[in-house]
Amino acid sequence: MSDFTLHPRLAADTLLITDLPLCQVRLMNDARYAWLVLVPRRDDIREVYELSAADQAKLWKEATALGKALMAAREGDKLNLATLGNMVPQLHLHVIVRHAGDAAWPGPVWGQGSALAYDANQEAAMRACLEECLTQSGLG
Amino acid sequence: MSDFTLHPRLAADTLLITDLPLCQVRLMNDARYAWLVLVPRRDDIREVYELSAADQAKLWKEATALGKALMAAREGDKLNLATLGNMVPQLHLHVIVRHAGDAAWPGPVWGQGSALAYDANQEAAMRACLEECLTQSGLG
Repeated sequence: MSDFTLHPRLAADTLLITDLPLCQVRLMNDARYAWLVLVPRRDDIREVYELSAADQAKLWKEATALGKALMAAREGDKLNLATLGNMVPQLHLHVIVRHAGDAAWPGPVWGQGSALAYDANQEAAMRACLEECLTQSGLG
Repeated sequence: MSDFTLHPRLAADTLLITDLPLCQVRLMNDARYAWLVLVPRRDDIREVYELSAADQAKLWKEATALGKALMAAREGDKLNLATLGNMVPQLHLHVIVRHAGDAAWPGPVWGQGSALAYDANQEAAMRACLEECLTQSGLG
């Protein structure tokens, strides 16, 4: 259902959830966190400011609306939003619900320990949660 | 010139540059990176989605316009934008120009080594650079 090329590292590390008007929503395959990666479905974009103004507005809207819903669903303590991209040049935005006492708290999640892949039950539960969040956010 | 209360940790770690329509622009006192912290001049805000829609638009515009100008001025390889806030609850957005081979590359900058405070000459040069960036970005 996509019209863009996904970086192989993102494809390997994340699970496809859905496509929004701008972004493909992917779930980091790491059950330690509720961690989404939003990838604008545009080729050859590295920086937010390379997107059109309309696309930039969509990016922030999709990230904040979905992040807000996921914070409520997971009773998070803090939402982390970040576009780093030092390893994967394709523009992607991390949307991570943090809990006091989680595996990396209060540090950032990147590079802390090893990802813990979802098992089938955990993945099904997270997919159901995200479906509800997409509805709640008005994006779904 | 400000009408809001700055968290003491941000006040201690950063240097005041200027006030934009929404954000106070502050320079992280760490000469290893060109690293700005944008703090929306609103009290009692922890998450981006707690800002009004108009303020959210201002936040992203100020961050991306200034980040783009700073990337050009410093010939950066990648712009990092992040709102984490696990340690300082007051909403603040990191805007960091990264270079391949910098002190934390390709990892994130947070928690890597110790900050290297600007000396007077470095600070003067960075302030001049930022003044030019503010003009270039149309924000100054």
